[in-house]
Amino acid sequence: MSAPKTSEFARIAGIERLLGGGRAAKSRAVELGIGDDAAVLRLDGRAVWTVDAQVEGVHFLRRWLSLEDIGYRSFQAAASDLAAMGAHPICALSSLALPARFTDAELSSLVRGQSEAARQCRCPVVGGNLSRASELSLTTTLLGRVETPLLRSAARAGDELWLVGDVGSSGLGLHALVHRSRKDRNISACIARWRRPRARIAEGERLVGRAHAAIDLSDGLAGDAGHIARASRVRLVLVAELIESALASELVAAANRLGLSALELALHAGEDYALLCAGPAELRPRFARPVGHVEQGAGVWLESCGRRKKLTGSFDHFSK
Amino acid sequence: MSAPKTSEFARIAGIERLLGGGRAAKSRAVELGIGDDAAVLRLDGRAVWTVDAQVEGVHFLRRWLSLEDIGYRSFQAAASDLAAMGAHPICALSSLALPARFTDAELSSLVRGQSEAARQCRCPVVGGNLSRASELSLTTTLLGRVETPLLRSAARAGDELWLVGDVGSSGLGLHALVHRSRKDRNISACIARWRRPRARIAEGERLVGRAHAAIDLSDGLAGDAGHIARASRVRLVLVAELIESALASELVAAANRLGLSALELALHAGEDYALLCAGPAELRPRFARPVGHVEQGAGVWLESCGRRKKLTGSFDHFSK
Repeated sequence: MSAPKTSEFARIAGIERLLGGGRAAKSRAVELGIGDDAAVLRLDGRAVWTVDAQVEGVHFLRRWLSLEDIGYRSFQAAASDLAAMGAHPICALSSLALPARFTDAELSSLVRGQSEAARQCRCPVVGGNLSRASELSLTTTLLGRVETPLLRSAARAGDELWLVGDVGSSGLGLHALVHRSRKDRNISACIARWRRPRARIAEGERLVGRAHAAIDLSDGLAGDAGHIARASRVRLVLVAELIESALASELVAAANRLGLSALELALHAGEDYALLCAGPAELRPRFARPVGHVEQGAGVWLESCGRRKKLTGSFDHFSK
Repeated sequence: MSAPKTSEFARIAGIERLLGGGRAAKSRAVELGIGDDAAVLRLDGRAVWTVDAQVEGVHFLRRWLSLEDIGYRSFQAAASDLAAMGAHPICALSSLALPARFTDAELSSLVRGQSEAARQCRCPVVGGNLSRASELSLTTTLLGRVETPLLRSAARAGDELWLVGDVGSSGLGLHALVHRSRKDRNISACIARWRRPRARIAEGERLVGRAHAAIDLSDGLAGDAGHIARASRVRLVLVAELIESALASELVAAANRLGLSALELALHAGEDYALLCAGPAELRPRFARPVGHVEQGAGVWLESCGRRKKLTGSFDHFSK
């Protein structure tokens, strides 16, 4: 086991070994990685750029996640923004704020999780920053490439709404941890979804030229649909029966077992990092499931058995 | 005065107004700014990319800085890494972690400071992230353009060492605040330097084609010189008499008044964001002052009256 605290210089060297070695993701765009004042890249064409932060006590508790999980999911959460733009990942920078007592072994676990996610997203971490803080936080910034990005603002009346990936499972997994539910296979599968979400990078890339608009579902179907409705100045109609038929069987079984509504979880629980897209029905790819449609108007509505109600509410860090 | 807490959505809209309005920095590379999952850029050629974080209680205390100062200096500290590469700023993303009680008025002050620095660096903030945290922190990531970046690893034996900008003044300013020194004009000038450091962007760009290597002085001349020595596998010899003749008159007067060594401050106090460069003496620009030279060997040495001693030590967030 490593000594609890080596120098910042040694820690950066250790991180470089974990990120750069073996089966690490590589990128032809990267001319110089960790070790100078900035990374050096060769970029041509249209790029998208995003930053996301995960803070202990706000986005995660160490009680329910290993440090590998925390590193992994923080990277996937940030990468999900590239997926939502239809972009191909280029590379990432990672800024870590570590409590004073954070040991070298803990740092290695955290970086191993980041490295695993980076490999899965084929998006190498080419630099970053270390600082001290009272609570652990990970800020990840990613660059991606896409000639025609999928924008929130491009949904059109007449579009179909598509779901790519599962919604609700992460929310159920978190619920089960918070309420210490007895686990069965389905509940455990939902917990695993919450611990190890996956950015829909490959699907996002294949949506370019098919979908008009896309967003990733970090805050739940209802809330994130609201962002598309506002940005595109349209009305989104989600159809309960379509959503229900698109839900993962493990979620349906687990919700049944815990006396929860799988539909409510899909609408209002977050952190699934699925994609919600709007596009012409005839262009819907096979991996996307229809969940509603776009109309002239405003807001997000839920249609069930031919009746509609207006949906509101998205998770807001500052509203409570 | 604003209500203490509006929604995340309203806060982002408010930030967008502060960053995007009036005399805000603009960039032709930016096709889409705040408001989608990611910013959309048009990039061609070689780019450099950096991220820097400033955390309350580690990098700053609100006792000694206004929120405008905190926003301003965190942006300049991050931009300084572009200056050290000789890069022309393209744009920036800002990830803010805010305590639960942080009010809208406080957020506006913080963003006004960032916006002022962004304008001065001609580097627009085109997106970012908001999250809650127990302590205030600002993580800034910047992209810049440069065909031949100034690397830490490119210093050569025979090069002259150049200083661009002032060193030691910020350290004295902080010392005066910590020790509640009685202020005169010179001490106040040093405090102002500490509160409002300036990234040497324009000078950095003009060093390309002249200097071989560069680094920005965030941790003091001695420590940062060590990074060049290690990366370039050379010995850096700093000459005390040259450094002393390059010191700002306000620093010399203020150090004299407070019984401090201006040379020690220049060597070991940080946060000046001056540049230390290595290049052929005949190519030294007029805005750079000679402070030593590069030899075969290793380490950083201070020469004074023909005698040498080895210098060590750089500020390390994790070493205490």
